[in-house]
Amino acid sequence: MITDTYDVIVVGGGHAGCEAAAAAANLGSSTLLVTMNMQTIGQMSCNPAMGGIAKGQIVREIDALGGYSGIIADKSAVQFKMLNLSKGPAMWSPRTQNDRMMFAEEWRIALENTPNLDFFQDMVKSLIIENNRAVGVVTSLGISIRSKSVILTNGTFLNGLIHVGDKQLGGGRMGEPRAFGITEQLVSLGFEAGRMKTGTPPRVDGRSLNYSVMEEQKGDEKPQKFSYTDTPKLTRQLSCHIVYTNETVHDILREGFERSPMFNGTIQSTGPRYCPSIEDKINRFAERTRHQLFVEPEGWRTCEIYVNGFSSSLPEDIQIKAMRHIPGFENVKVFRPGYAIEYDYFPPTQLNHTLETKLIANLYFAGQINGTTGYEEAAGQGLMAGINAHNKVHGKDDFILQRDEAYIGVLIDDLITKGTEEPYRMFTSRAEYRLLLRQDNADVRLTEKGYKIGLASEERLKTAEEKITKSNELEAFLKDYSLKPGVINPVLQTIDSSPVDQAYRAAQILTRPNMSLEKLEDIEGIREISSTYAEEVREQAEINIKYRGYIEKEKENVAKLNRLETIKIPEDFNYEAITSLSAEAKQKMTKVNPKTIAQASRISGVSPADINVLLIYLGR
Amino acid sequence: MITDTYDVIVVGGGHAGCEAAAAAANLGSSTLLVTMNMQTIGQMSCNPAMGGIAKGQIVREIDALGGYSGIIADKSAVQFKMLNLSKGPAMWSPRTQNDRMMFAEEWRIALENTPNLDFFQDMVKSLIIENNRAVGVVTSLGISIRSKSVILTNGTFLNGLIHVGDKQLGGGRMGEPRAFGITEQLVSLGFEAGRMKTGTPPRVDGRSLNYSVMEEQKGDEKPQKFSYTDTPKLTRQLSCHIVYTNETVHDILREGFERSPMFNGTIQSTGPRYCPSIEDKINRFAERTRHQLFVEPEGWRTCEIYVNGFSSSLPEDIQIKAMRHIPGFENVKVFRPGYAIEYDYFPPTQLNHTLETKLIANLYFAGQINGTTGYEEAAGQGLMAGINAHNKVHGKDDFILQRDEAYIGVLIDDLITKGTEEPYRMFTSRAEYRLLLRQDNADVRLTEKGYKIGLASEERLKTAEEKITKSNELEAFLKDYSLKPGVINPVLQTIDSSPVDQAYRAAQILTRPNMSLEKLEDIEGIREISSTYAEEVREQAEINIKYRGYIEKEKENVAKLNRLETIKIPEDFNYEAITSLSAEAKQKMTKVNPKTIAQASRISGVSPADINVLLIYLGR
Repeated sequence: MITDTYDVIVVGGGHAGCEAAAAAANLGSSTLLVTMNMQTIGQMSCNPAMGGIAKGQIVREIDALGGYSGIIADKSAVQFKMLNLSKGPAMWSPRTQNDRMMFAEEWRIALENTPNLDFFQDMVKSLIIENNRAVGVVTSLGISIRSKSVILTNGTFLNGLIHVGDKQLGGGRMGEPRAFGITEQLVSLGFEAGRMKTGTPPRVDGRSLNYSVMEEQKGDEKPQKFSYTDTPKLTRQLSCHIVYTNETVHDILREGFERSPMFNGTIQSTGPRYCPSIEDKINRFAERTRHQLFVEPEGWRTCEIYVNGFSSSLPEDIQIKAMRHIPGFENVKVFRPGYAIEYDYFPPTQLNHTLETKLIANLYFAGQINGTTGYEEAAGQGLMAGINAHNKVHGKDDFILQRDEAYIGVLIDDLITKGTEEPYRMFTSRAEYRLLLRQDNADVRLTEKGYKIGLASEERLKTAEEKITKSNELEAFLKDYSLKPGVINPVLQTIDSSPVDQAYRAAQILTRPNMSLEKLEDIEGIREISSTYAEEVREQAEINIKYRGYIEKEKENVAKLNRLETIKIPEDFNYEAITSLSAEAKQKMTKVNPKTIAQASRISGVSPADINVLLIYLGR
Repeated sequence: MITDTYDVIVVGGGHAGCEAAAAAANLGSSTLLVTMNMQTIGQMSCNPAMGGIAKGQIVREIDALGGYSGIIADKSAVQFKMLNLSKGPAMWSPRTQNDRMMFAEEWRIALENTPNLDFFQDMVKSLIIENNRAVGVVTSLGISIRSKSVILTNGTFLNGLIHVGDKQLGGGRMGEPRAFGITEQLVSLGFEAGRMKTGTPPRVDGRSLNYSVMEEQKGDEKPQKFSYTDTPKLTRQLSCHIVYTNETVHDILREGFERSPMFNGTIQSTGPRYCPSIEDKINRFAERTRHQLFVEPEGWRTCEIYVNGFSSSLPEDIQIKAMRHIPGFENVKVFRPGYAIEYDYFPPTQLNHTLETKLIANLYFAGQINGTTGYEEAAGQGLMAGINAHNKVHGKDDFILQRDEAYIGVLIDDLITKGTEEPYRMFTSRAEYRLLLRQDNADVRLTEKGYKIGLASEERLKTAEEKITKSNELEAFLKDYSLKPGVINPVLQTIDSSPVDQAYRAAQILTRPNMSLEKLEDIEGIREISSTYAEEVREQAEINIKYRGYIEKEKENVAKLNRLETIKIPEDFNYEAITSLSAEAKQKMTKVNPKTIAQASRISGVSPADINVLLIYLGR
């Protein structure tokens, strides 16, 4: 029926699939997005929010490279918060609450406006594989569609099994059918598959809540946004609310433990450690008398509420009974209970850095199919898979981000090198160079790369370049501008900082704790220059000056480790032949097949001693 | 889990379910809407349009009674047309094209803003029946929810089976799971169930069409709207386009007949006669060399297109191959092929006029489950079921609309009296008093009724009453205003109407063919009065004057037949005991159990002779 041979077929229309399809198509690949239901494109399956700690950085990186997640999130935002502002800038993390319906609609419209991108609504049941190469898909209607590459972004749909208490339902999300066929085929082709588990909290009726006893959590007074493009800033915002569980709630939840699929052995697969169910929290942290919950609106107009922190697969009667003992939830009405879902994933050590599978050429995996959790992690992988599928089909170089270049680089390197036994979530602590990988400089780090591969527009590049030029300019000014004691001491006094007795450069003063560029702008000579620069330029210059020492140190470390990155290990290297390697190192390295010494060093179970043996063997 | 006992539980969130839930809740019943997926509430499963011939009248009736379909349609409209303006006012029919996503969103928000209405997302698998009375539902999670009544509006979801060529997929709509359990339970309770079939055309990518060779069909220059309330009028509109099939298209479609589930016996159930598939059209009307198709936009921002008239369950390759020979469709890209769907329905002769089932008390059926087709037919039934479920639970009278009062009355009376063997669609020809049942006077006919039952607001009532008062006033003025030959003859000349030689009342002149109130307003004495009245008042007065003769005659007929309506047949009447009744009449009347002689007379197979026998037997 579909006679075209596409460059890229993307299977799945979630965060990974949408970014993959947009990237491949925008780069010029003829692309087809196949989804079970075109009305659920861009669906937020779980919380109505984007970003957060380490995740907000990923959204900014996607944006800087020319992806859409930041733009869509901005257009559908109902609240913006910059998290962790009390910590250093490496920890600052943008986050939006979003209107769930608008988010999906904006994705759908953005994709429809993407050239080279076609759509087909059907379930993919199998891949067409010829000579160990993916060359198309077959749908549940029996339609064969040919392509030069295939990106699988199946999310939680592969053999999805929903659990609520002791009941199980087949489904990819509640109320939506699951997908089947693909896992079985891939396993028959030699892939290793596993099961993971994730969960989602109840959705409740906001009209049944008593907000007057809850703690209101407003958005930022000066809301920012994700995208470096000219997306709109919020002019009004919706509030979230904070509530707490208590011992009565916990006692009631414990009543359901016997019927809990998590505790009675029904669910064997592993769930996200850092996004545990409420029963998991009260079980693992039995000493805690309360847990914080966020009462999050689902959109501008709907009364639906997402009870963040109360993810559960306990029997629905227990969920409700317990919730009704949370202050403000006494009369709560439930739209649907929380549930757990088990689904198939493929341990990601079966992938290359491009997210292409090692077993089947031109077949890419992105998102939860790789064992990750989170919209942002999925979107980042989708973007990279889309770029690399395009590049491969067009004979271009692989596009790989290093660990010192992007969280996306850390994410993919972690996945393919270390694998994951539980849903992988990004944290700032996973990035050894997190001071380099800030949300504020994602454009500085990545827009040129995005431009070079043809994804980020020239306009974006110019904007990023101008920001760099301007912040360098301002930095130079501050490094040069001299402040006499009579001028600076009154300012220092306002922050209880000791006075100076000679002139200092403004940049030097700025490195003092609690000193900020904003404070320095009390001085007219600084203000009259500084105020001519845009907000993000001043922030950039300030961070560069204040954290210069740390940044320099991290850059040195990068340089050191990059030497190891340049030492390539031959593709068909035989680890078994090196007798002095530990047995575990031989096994793990054979499995992962690292491309460089640096990558080998990151494999869990490979010791520094093993690395030394390898270095000697490779003649270094 | 849900400890409340609801007054009314509505199963299903389509047009019927939404209206039922809104009506019951607005009347004051504690109401629960249970749907498989809260994100598909108010989904337009088939064409992105509301109203049309006889259907637009139903939407206006729903609106006049205090239902929501007209309001939702107005808010989400992208085009308005008043159809059949060249015919008499009984045929005038309002129709909108709608933004599919907005339509669903507006329904969702309207329902969320309805007091007394709760929501629960889950599939209902069975009913709780006690003492032959519906007292709740059990969901797929095993949750029992108690109620005093249940309204089933399952649409095409009961054991839904989708066909595309020789492939079959279980599903309630493409990409959505089907529902099961309810049919089997109802059959075990003694209900008769059947299968029906309906179909939907392909959805295509508007970016792949060549509109320059198509005939543009714009909306009305002065777009009106459905609702009598202050919903917004369209200020800009989207166009549809008209194309035609041709013999090449037909030849290609015929190639697929062997693999057609309609022709090879796979589908045994009956589809909608007046909404046939394209293969049905070329098969039944083999002499026709072309069929008209409407290219309809799916919304303001999406490029998705609905190919109205090309409904098909032929193999997808045939659908596409054939479409590509339609001018403008040479390069068409398909989002999804058309398909047929078979589903369970319950012959509606098993219902009372209230839509309550005869077998199980407090159980109501509305929409496609009763064998109807069409959003408007579904919505009308939903509204009536919602009202009657509320009334019964609260010990109030049944709310029944007579055949001379509303298309909704005709619809329900037809269904429960005659049953239907094929999907029932409303036509003006089904209404014997269609000159009374106009779209322009639905408020005049019904708003007071809606107000009396507590559904239409006082504001609505006042608006309707004012319209009646004002149009009577204007009518009186026109009946009284005398036009001398010198004044009226120049006007008559402009419409080629013969001149008069004496004075006539304006109303008399208005009854002439081609004469209109607008024309009469060329005369200053008329214009200065008439122009002080609102558009809809002038229209009402004009219709009342121009069609007075016909309207009076219909009212006389109503009065005649209403005498038969007043002759009640006892509930437990034993037809078998009357030997002079025909065998067929005995059988049919026993099955339908008509409440009045008039209803008995409408049963197909019951002859006037049978009615005479009955009249004699009942002592008339």
